[in-house]
Amino acid sequence: MSVTAAQGFTAAGVAAGIKSNGNPDLALVVNNGPRLAAAGVFTANRVKAAPVLWSEQVLKGGQVSAVVLNSGGANACTGPLGFQDTHATAEKAAEVLGHSAGEIAVASTGLIGIRLPMEKVLSGVEKAAGELSAHGGEKAAIAIKTTDTVHKTAVTQSPAGWTVGGMAKGAGMLAPGLATMLVVLTTDADVDAPGLDTALRAATGTTFDRIDSDGCMSTNDTVLLLASGATGVTPDPDEFAEAVRTVCDDLARQLIGDAEGASKDIRIEVINAADEREAVEVGRTIARNNLLKCAIHGEDPNWGRVLSAIGTTSATFDPDQLNVAINDVWVCKNGSVGEDRALVDMRYREVRITADLAAGSASAVIWTNDLTADYVHENSAYSS
Amino acid sequence: MSVTAAQGFTAAGVAAGIKSNGNPDLALVVNNGPRLAAAGVFTANRVKAAPVLWSEQVLKGGQVSAVVLNSGGANACTGPLGFQDTHATAEKAAEVLGHSAGEIAVASTGLIGIRLPMEKVLSGVEKAAGELSAHGGEKAAIAIKTTDTVHKTAVTQSPAGWTVGGMAKGAGMLAPGLATMLVVLTTDADVDAPGLDTALRAATGTTFDRIDSDGCMSTNDTVLLLASGATGVTPDPDEFAEAVRTVCDDLARQLIGDAEGASKDIRIEVINAADEREAVEVGRTIARNNLLKCAIHGEDPNWGRVLSAIGTTSATFDPDQLNVAINDVWVCKNGSVGEDRALVDMRYREVRITADLAAGSASAVIWTNDLTADYVHENSAYSS
Repeated sequence: MSVTAAQGFTAAGVAAGIKSNGNPDLALVVNNGPRLAAAGVFTANRVKAAPVLWSEQVLKGGQVSAVVLNSGGANACTGPLGFQDTHATAEKAAEVLGHSAGEIAVASTGLIGIRLPMEKVLSGVEKAAGELSAHGGEKAAIAIKTTDTVHKTAVTQSPAGWTVGGMAKGAGMLAPGLATMLVVLTTDADVDAPGLDTALRAATGTTFDRIDSDGCMSTNDTVLLLASGATGVTPDPDEFAEAVRTVCDDLARQLIGDAEGASKDIRIEVINAADEREAVEVGRTIARNNLLKCAIHGEDPNWGRVLSAIGTTSATFDPDQLNVAINDVWVCKNGSVGEDRALVDMRYREVRITADLAAGSASAVIWTNDLTADYVHENSAYSS
Repeated sequence: MSVTAAQGFTAAGVAAGIKSNGNPDLALVVNNGPRLAAAGVFTANRVKAAPVLWSEQVLKGGQVSAVVLNSGGANACTGPLGFQDTHATAEKAAEVLGHSAGEIAVASTGLIGIRLPMEKVLSGVEKAAGELSAHGGEKAAIAIKTTDTVHKTAVTQSPAGWTVGGMAKGAGMLAPGLATMLVVLTTDADVDAPGLDTALRAATGTTFDRIDSDGCMSTNDTVLLLASGATGVTPDPDEFAEAVRTVCDDLARQLIGDAEGASKDIRIEVINAADEREAVEVGRTIARNNLLKCAIHGEDPNWGRVLSAIGTTSATFDPDQLNVAINDVWVCKNGSVGEDRALVDMRYREVRITADLAAGSASAVIWTNDLTADYVHENSAYSS
């Protein structure tokens, strides 16, 4: 299903030889129209990969006819030659598809600081173009995997007849400003580029932007939303926005559920904050506390580490009024010892931390993972 | 030597039974004058342990006659009763030493959210008072250890006849705003409280404040500097400040060298920054990047992770002008591939990362550690 669940899209995923292990590593998603509207959200990292710099320019036009995605190399920190490589990739896709290069988005993921093997990339684009299919969504989702153990897709359908579907990759470097994370969403609803942009920004702001696996922001994060308008149905804007949010939320949860080396998915809900910004700040700070993430890995309801993390924020709170629940047991009340920590059952993969700031009525949910020896292993051996 | 290297001080370290394993866990440092001047720097965490709240009050008077330190429990997040425990500890020390409780500082370290076993603490204070000695500095340094593998002391002597000595503990939660970290420095130079405060703040600002083992700030950080004036020598202020800085730097390096589970000490020097504040911001951000810390653990000169960390800061730089050296090999030049990464020899414990922002002439050095499976193990099993 994936990016080909919506009408008007074809896709393919092939092994271009970019990855030395021969796994699929190049995906192509084509919008066959009639509309070619698109919106994109990119990493907030100031060090941006060549494909991000390229695609940001493409998206300014609000039209995308195809997206080329590769795993096996991020094409980040590769200088002007790396940018030329991205440009050549778009030109190649334009040539084989009969489109304009200025409407071809490119996304890459993998190791930073390595040039892509361009002969393989270009022949891969040609190969993928030859395999484009209205059933190619799953193969495309598989081809963008890096350390992902599973490919990730999601779909939602409106009673009005239109569909929003998508694929995502990303199992490390998940962080605000989006994760490393390549996401392509497609819809056959008839929505123009500004309408897509509004829906996409609203959706990413409360989904991808609120997952934070390891606090590290990527140079390559890219989330694209393409509309073919193939159903001819103009959706209700609120219903459309909610559909996009639903698919993003589904994919975001899948990213957290498959984060590198993780054994726990941690849902941090900050409640009774003075405002939403402060709730998000506190949630992120808790999510990034290595000591807490280790404790959760050890199934240790160490609420002191939650409090010491909250204490480093600038949010409104009184230390003597903080309350913390772990899996619904209020182990910390009024900044001090609460219910018996032995009551906390942490054997399951999902762990829920609730931090009550007692400072207002705003709230926010941030998802993160535990910190494990497997994470260390996977990330100490990644490039060498 | 430690806190008893300077004249006018006695100290002791005893096993009070706070730690269940019977190891030494209570230290006492006494200033026998004639001067009782003191200065202190405490954690910037807004969730402060009871002994921090207490000692901050004591230090406002600029006089400290004794310091009681315990390991085996942080007495943090223990509410009003926890504060009463600290107060009772100071009262007990005042009683057995014949001093005023308002001049007794207290410092604690260990697990958050657990009340201290006060009978053991109070009898420990009595026991320590009975063992006070001008040679007790080492025993005191041993008694404040938690997960430290070695005790940490440092001493420097002035040709003018005065001495600055000190002890430190802390092997986890090392972070800006100081580490968890209890430090007591003593001097027999004749310096008043404001003079001590000036020297101490200048010293901690470029030493303890620039080590960041795991990005986690403690609720209990305490650094005290006590002056007995026993030599009767009023030091040159600059020479004194430099001596305090030297001892702090020595202890800070020892803390990094003994951080939990670490196998590498990483020296991050940010050069050519627009100003020192930006140099420190960039250095800290690099120091907190889990992916980089894993790569260093794996002896992988993964400079892309340095650039992606720099890219998340607000510092002044042009991504295309960034240069990064690892162990003096400039693996990244002008934001792209530089010298051959195979030239980087990372077999030794110390790893040097140089980040050249090409934006000015300011610089700063931040020390951190690698992220290891041992760190995860130690911190997932800490309280359970």
